Amino acid sequence: MNITPKENILKVKPYIPGKPIEDVKRELGLKTVIKLASNENPYGPSPKVLRAMAAASRTVNRYPDGACFYLRHELARQLGVEEDQLIFGNGSDEIIVLAVRAYVGKGDEVVIAQPSFLIYEIASLLEGAIVRSVPLRDFRYDLPGMKKAVNANTKIIFIGNPDNPAGTYVPRAQLLEFLSDLRRDIIIFIDEAYFEYVHEKDYPNGIDLLRSYPNVIVTRTFSKMYGLAGLRVGYGVADAKIIDHLNRLREPFNVNSIAQAAAIACLKDKGFYRRIAKAVEEERIFLYKSLKSMNVAYEQSFTNFILINVKTDSSIIAQKLMKRGIIIRDMKAWGLNQYIRVTIGSQKENRLLIKMLNEVLRES
Amino acid sequence: MNITPKENILKVKPYIPGKPIEDVKRELGLKTVIKLASNENPYGPSPKVLRAMAAASRTVNRYPDGACFYLRHELARQLGVEEDQLIFGNGSDEIIVLAVRAYVGKGDEVVIAQPSFLIYEIASLLEGAIVRSVPLRDFRYDLPGMKKAVNANTKIIFIGNPDNPAGTYVPRAQLLEFLSDLRRDIIIFIDEAYFEYVHEKDYPNGIDLLRSYPNVIVTRTFSKMYGLAGLRVGYGVADAKIIDHLNRLREPFNVNSIAQAAAIACLKDKGFYRRIAKAVEEERIFLYKSLKSMNVAYEQSFTNFILINVKTDSSIIAQKLMKRGIIIRDMKAWGLNQYIRVTIGSQKENRLLIKMLNEVLRES
Repeated sequence: MNITPKENILKVKPYIPGKPIEDVKRELGLKTVIKLASNENPYGPSPKVLRAMAAASRTVNRYPDGACFYLRHELARQLGVEEDQLIFGNGSDEIIVLAVRAYVGKGDEVVIAQPSFLIYEIASLLEGAIVRSVPLRDFRYDLPGMKKAVNANTKIIFIGNPDNPAGTYVPRAQLLEFLSDLRRDIIIFIDEAYFEYVHEKDYPNGIDLLRSYPNVIVTRTFSKMYGLAGLRVGYGVADAKIIDHLNRLREPFNVNSIAQAAAIACLKDKGFYRRIAKAVEEERIFLYKSLKSMNVAYEQSFTNFILINVKTDSSIIAQKLMKRGIIIRDMKAWGLNQYIRVTIGSQKENRLLIKMLNEVLRES
Repeated sequence: MNITPKENILKVKPYIPGKPIEDVKRELGLKTVIKLASNENPYGPSPKVLRAMAAASRTVNRYPDGACFYLRHELARQLGVEEDQLIFGNGSDEIIVLAVRAYVGKGDEVVIAQPSFLIYEIASLLEGAIVRSVPLRDFRYDLPGMKKAVNANTKIIFIGNPDNPAGTYVPRAQLLEFLSDLRRDIIIFIDEAYFEYVHEKDYPNGIDLLRSYPNVIVTRTFSKMYGLAGLRVGYGVADAKIIDHLNRLREPFNVNSIAQAAAIACLKDKGFYRRIAKAVEEERIFLYKSLKSMNVAYEQSFTNFILINVKTDSSIIAQKLMKRGIIIRDMKAWGLNQYIRVTIGSQKENRLLIKMLNEVLRES
């Protein structure tokens, strides 16, 4: 076999997702496994969403609507943007990849906080980009440091807001100051996957920036609060010209028809999902209190996950929890060797997590 | 807005999919519309597949299994290949894009029959490739002509087998002769989206070639005979090294969880789908007879669609049929200005098509 791919492809370390529940059950012979590894909503879809999915199931023999007509119409209305300012993706991670493919070529540069969502870096390296990594400071974006990393070759600056895995956000004033004297031909990619969990007054809604900064792309997803991770649907909001560029790279039927139907139903059933987000916030307080009482350090989070400092080899803790049927995320791949990231699950799941974490930490 | 994308992106004419039924109803104010434009299976999923989808619907809050473990296992068993010889895509069109992104760079060349599936060309041009188009002869692949188009820069040769929109196939002997003295570092991309419809003895199963030709990639889909177009799931079969290359470019959760569950159920309910394929074959004969009786020329097809020579401006015919509530494909975008392509629908749909086509052709 003498087929060789383009030069960067073999150099890039692939993304390793959180282990699926079924895998852990199978591999460890466990009957009950809970997953707090992928920042999923612990509850299934609302009754209305389930009904929309069932109705759409009957016509899966037809290709999806490649334009996402009805979803686009409803979302544009709710967000107060034009329909041509929206692009839908097979998850919002697809929008990341499309943006990198559209704007970043070999030798171009991108600026990414470290640690951050790994797909920013992977997608950029695959296109042959030079990645300027700027470490977080106290688990917050170092925007002055990121500005210093910008040069004539910079094409995209990625801002996870809130960031994953830190769980913190960039406040409005800092973001505006950062944007004010940046070149306007650099894409500012603001990933708001956890937007729906932040209620702080100084948290900036990226879409409000679009009028003044047509170089901004904002992405959000139905995978987190709306609980449609399995269906794969996210979206980008940007200037219509940017959306046109990304659309040219988009495969014509990238968003499946059940995802479209379910996402529309979510948008029309917001009360249900806000109650879920509320429950997550209450559980976050429970977890904070429990961790404090165990004398375990954590970072304050504005999302549905918490970064925990286990003060020992994170892989050992992750393995021990897995043997007890709890999948969490070992942060070693992000360079945080003593940290784990846990998703805020259901009440029952969080209580089990605390119990088992207590056990495991006392052993270590 | 002074954001400009990479050089090729604005030059490529985007793919225009068949119009969704809902669009035509909305735009023309029609109540009943049938779609014979996208080579879909006219029937919904089998009861077993519907049950599998309903079960999977309850856990869409979880990310899909990025490895498609169970689907991979079942399909590898049925195809008699190793599990690491398979890659799953958000439709098999995603595998086309991944292959082009993996192997084709700026200035590289690809060889494509003309007309053929438009995504081969679009994906290649987006990567900056030079496309060598080789016209069909009598609506069949001109393999000697394609071999002449090969040069030192050739990276991929695309073979739709059967081809869309012609509906014809490359026989085994011709394919083997073509492969025998080709350089082994060129990817031979054999797209078998319509594989399940061909029963001719001299039709080559691409997977049988893999042992002798590790430079072959074969793709198939659940969108056609299996009727899961709306869910987006297809697959590629190749040497494990090629699969590894493509996997590095694949987004981690590219195949949604309902698609995975439905595809497994399809593989376990093959009898149901073979009966559908049988019905399509019977209807193909009905359409041939009807077209003959109307003195309308067509190409013999080995798929679930037929290329029809309307001997007048195909766009006018397509528009007139659309006003009557029938969506078919105008072949102008493929350079066939007097041809339409019709999908073989249900018995009722095909009878309506013939009635309306008769009306429309008599008018012209």
